[in-house]
Formats: sequence, structure tokens, C-alpha cells
Amino acid sequence: MSDTVVVGLDVGGTSTRAAAVSLDGVRLGTGRAGGGNPTTHGADRAAAELLAALRAALADVDPARVRAGTIGLAGAGRLLADPQGHAAFDQAWADAGLRCPYAVHGDALVAYASGTAAPDGTVLIAGTGAIAAEVRDLRLDRVADGHGWLLGDAGSGFWLGREAVRRLLADLDRAEAPGGLARRILAELTGSSEVAARPRATAETVVQAVTRRPPVELARLAPLVVTAAREGEPAAASLVAEAATLLAESVGRIRPAGAGNPLVIGGGLLTGDTALADAVRGELGRRWPDAPLCAAGDAAAAAAWLAARDLPEVTDPAALHARLVPAR
Amino acid sequence: MSDTVVVGLDVGGTSTRAAAVSLDGVRLGTGRAGGGNPTTHGADRAAAELLAALRAALADVDPARVRAGTIGLAGAGRLLADPQGHAAFDQAWADAGLRCPYAVHGDALVAYASGTAAPDGTVLIAGTGAIAAEVRDLRLDRVADGHGWLLGDAGSGFWLGREAVRRLLADLDRAEAPGGLARRILAELTGSSEVAARPRATAETVVQAVTRRPPVELARLAPLVVTAAREGEPAAASLVAEAATLLAESVGRIRPAGAGNPLVIGGGLLTGDTALADAVRGELGRRWPDAPLCAAGDAAAAAAWLAARDLPEVTDPAALHARLVPAR
Repeated sequence: MSDTVVVGLDVGGTSTRAAAVSLDGVRLGTGRAGGGNPTTHGADRAAAELLAALRAALADVDPARVRAGTIGLAGAGRLLADPQGHAAFDQAWADAGLRCPYAVHGDALVAYASGTAAPDGTVLIAGTGAIAAEVRDLRLDRVADGHGWLLGDAGSGFWLGREAVRRLLADLDRAEAPGGLARRILAELTGSSEVAARPRATAETVVQAVTRRPPVELARLAPLVVTAAREGEPAAASLVAEAATLLAESVGRIRPAGAGNPLVIGGGLLTGDTALADAVRGELGRRWPDAPLCAAGDAAAAAAWLAARDLPEVTDPAALHARLVPAR
Repeated sequence: MSDTVVVGLDVGGTSTRAAAVSLDGVRLGTGRAGGGNPTTHGADRAAAELLAALRAALADVDPARVRAGTIGLAGAGRLLADPQGHAAFDQAWADAGLRCPYAVHGDALVAYASGTAAPDGTVLIAGTGAIAAEVRDLRLDRVADGHGWLLGDAGSGFWLGREAVRRLLADLDRAEAPGGLARRILAELTGSSEVAARPRATAETVVQAVTRRPPVELARLAPLVVTAAREGEPAAASLVAEAATLLAESVGRIRPAGAGNPLVIGGGLLTGDTALADAVRGELGRRWPDAPLCAAGDAAAAAAWLAARDLPEVTDPAALHARLVPAR
């Protein structure tokens, strides 16, 4: 077994995950802690979660063996521009006993690397938001969308939730009985799927239920839409198809027609066997028939792989990828 | 000249307008004051503006001659449910020397009455937001949209502004030179129509410029779109056409196909000879070829007419309407 160890971290809004792996692809430890994004949680809290995840991953590993590390983080650019956040991460790294340097990459690049070892390709991520990015030599090149719920995130969880509510409101405006999806959205928002004698009163209740919360929480309705689409509910199926078209259009803003390098899809709405993942695979397959379609996998392991591939003793990064980040 | 006087008020977010008229259609006075919506300005401030507008309109009129009054107000229902707001309006009414009762109607009904004397018809209003309403016997019946910028207002000023920014961001994502409308939007938001060497940096600046302000202020970009459409800019013309379709669809939610009663259009974006007004007239004319299309006019005069028509001595309300609220 190689004596050299690399660590990878996937720092997200709700969890921080760490992996320590040897260069022959053996996973030596994993760690999990709370959300650790310095932009949303503050530098000190984020660094504390980072340290907790690192310590768990290194419980059975001598930190002196760790030769490289990579942190994947949404808004990585902001961390690099934030001296306080950067210093807090440096301190956590040192407190974990690590003496090697670490690199920080955007979560989109790490998601890409969790799906393929190919240096060039495209990644599409759809969760609460949506973003597509072109990867060149394992660096992010051009980016499409990711502009946030007010101006972008077309086809995202926010978009699905908002459109589902809009269709419910249209049913109520028309004084038509809400359809299957609309009834579920109504029950979720108001606690009942009953429409008042004056449908406008129900519409006002719906608008108030949504506007009481931060707009981005409309994304919480997305799983209802995706599930209803899987069950064949027509309005949900049409929303999911429209979302898939919008997501593929975002990819088309940055990816040349006819490109044959890999397309990686990831994010909460495209992970697993969801109706949206199916629809997106269909759209992407139609537009780029020659491209391998890969599912994003273990982001912490992919971050570790990104750290390892620059070490001189790693002569076959693709083989290491196959061991560390198995295809889904 | 008839001794009887009626007063009408149009209470909006940015101004309060009052008209005092005689039953033979002579305008005896007008008044103007600041925004007086109790929901947005508070009851006392709103009542003070109401009183100022009333006093100006009644400068040359003995208040004892006033036999009826109507206040048109966005969110009229909320005033009726707000004892404090209602009491403040009662007090302003009394302070102006008025002893007659007054009625409160929604601004959509008053806009309708400013375009036609027909008791049944439909009104479509597009400004910052957008709403359509069916009128039966000069009462609001069913309403479509008006659900606010997050969930509704399809085809409104907010919608036009947001879509114009979205198209600019799509140009930047594609690393294409922004078109004519996109360049104007970019200059308006960032102070320059130059795109950075890395277009993503410009996209981020645009998103930050928008998200620094309340979302509804995207409506401030709508005049740029409407003007560019008038000049034939293709992206603007296509947005305006899409907005007109959405607005006509909102009308279609509440108005039967083939209806021949009047359609009144009003609101900041549909008043006057704008490209959107033209497009909306085209859409409505295609869907309801038999319906007279009327432009909304003087709302304070229309409110006064609504007050007058219930008085026993008004035997020909249509004739009074023709004198008080001349067609545009």
C-alpha cells in the first residue's frame, strides 16, 4: 500500500464531507459535519465544521502522510477573495495536523470530476438552483446560468416550484377545479386541497403562504412536482419536460453543437432515478448524441482525486479515478 | 347648473387625485396630493394626502353641496378590513367639511369606469404589475393575475424588465456581443455598455446591480424595452409581443370567448400610444373581434361618476359619463 495519502472535502450548505484515500485507491477514512460554507455560515462556523469532518476522516491516519488536499466549495472565488474566511480555513487545516497545501475549487468542477476523469467536458447541476459549466483541462472555463432565482436558475428546483404554484393560481383564476398536481401544491401550502366558494380567496391564501417565506423556499415544492411527473400527472410531466428543455438550453449556451466529450449531470434534482433526470438525459442525448452521459458521484472522493492527480507518483490518473470514484 | 356636487378620488401609490363635479358634468375643481395608500404609507399619512387633495378640489365649492363621493384605491378590500385606516379616512372626509357618505372601490373598477359607462365588461391593467378583472353591473366580479411579481404579473413592467435582463445574461453566457436592447439594459444597470474580457464578470456585475435593490424595481427597465420595441429593436419587439400574449391570456382566464362587451385597457404601460398598448390592442382585437376597445381615462372623474350614478336625479348615467369622462 502506498504510504501517501490525499484528502478531499465537499463543503456544502447543509453538510461538509471529507475523504482520506491512499494513492492505490483505498479509502482510509471518511468524515461528515454540518454545513460549512463561509459565505452563508460565517468563517468561524465553517472552519469548525471543516475541522470536524477532517478529524473524522483522519481518525486512523497519521496526518503527516497527507501530501495534498482539495476543498470543493460553492462560491470558491468568494473564499479566495475573503482574507478572514481563508485564514479560518488555513487554521482548521493546521489544527487537523495537516502540513501540505490545499487547493480550493468550485463545487461545479468537483461535481464534474465526480462523474468523469476526462479533462474536457461539461457539467450540469440542478438542485435549488441550476448552473452549467464547461471544463477545460479540469479547470472551469465558461459558465451558463447560476444567476440565482430572481434572474436565472431556469429549470431548477426553484423554477419547478414557482411554475407549479403559477399553474395552480391560473386554475383558480379560471375558477376551474385544480388538477392533480395543483391539489397537492395547494394542500402543501395551505394545509387543505379545498377551494373556497370564491376561488380568489384561495388564490390570495396561496400567494400569502408563499410570500411569507424567502422566495428560494419555493424549491421545497420541486420534489412534489418530480414525484407527480413520475406518476404520470400531466401538468407535472409538462413542467418537468419544460425544465429539462431549459436546462439543456443552458448547456447549449456554452457547449458546441456536436461536441463528443462527456456530459456530467448532478445536483439534488438530477441525482438518482428522478423523472427530471430521465428527461434531462433524453434532452442532452438528443442534442449531443455522441457524448457519454455520466452521473455525478462522490464529491469528497472526487476532490481527493483532484488533489492526487498533480502528485508526481500518480502516473495514471484515469485508473486512480476508476478506483476512487466508481461510476454510478 | 345643478346645485348637486359629487367628488371622486383616485388614491395611488405615487399620487392622490380628486375631482369635484356638478351633475351636469361641469368640473368645479381638482386636487392633487402625494401617494395616499394606507397599506403602503400608513393610515395617518394616507388620510393627510386625501384631505389635501379634497381641500384643493373643494377650494371653490361649498362642501354642503356634495351629495356623494367615491374613493378608488388599490387594495380597497384591505382598507375595509382595517379599522384604523377606515377611521383615518372618515376623519379626513369630515375635516374636508363633507357630510355625505362615501364608497370605496378597487382601482381596477375605477379604471374600468374611466373607459366606459357600460355596466358589464373587462378591464386589463398593466403597470409595475398586471391584473385583469371582469365587471358585472359595475362591480368587480372575477379577477385574474394580480398575484405579485414573484408568482404572477405576467406581461407587466416587472416581467418586461426581468426578461430583458435574462436575455442580456443569456448573451453574456454565450459570450456573444449583446444586442441593442441588451446594451441599453447593461448601460442602465452598470453605467457602461462595455463587456469585460471575461463576460462572466459582467454577468455577475449585472446580477449584483439587480439584487441590490428590491426585485419590483426591475419594472423601472420596462420603459427602455417599450421604447426599443417602438424603434424596431428585434429582442424588444419580441418581448413586447410575448408580454401582450401573456396579458391577453390573463384576460382569457376570466372573459368568455366571443364576448362583445367593452374591454378597457389602462395602467402606466397601456396608457398612451406605447408599443405594448398597440400589441395588446392587436391581441385583444384578434381574440375578441366584436368587443369595443376603450382606453382608461381620468380615474378621479370616473370615481365621481360612480358616486353620481346612484343619485336619484341622475336618469341618464351614460350621458353624464360622456360629459365627465370623455373617451380618449
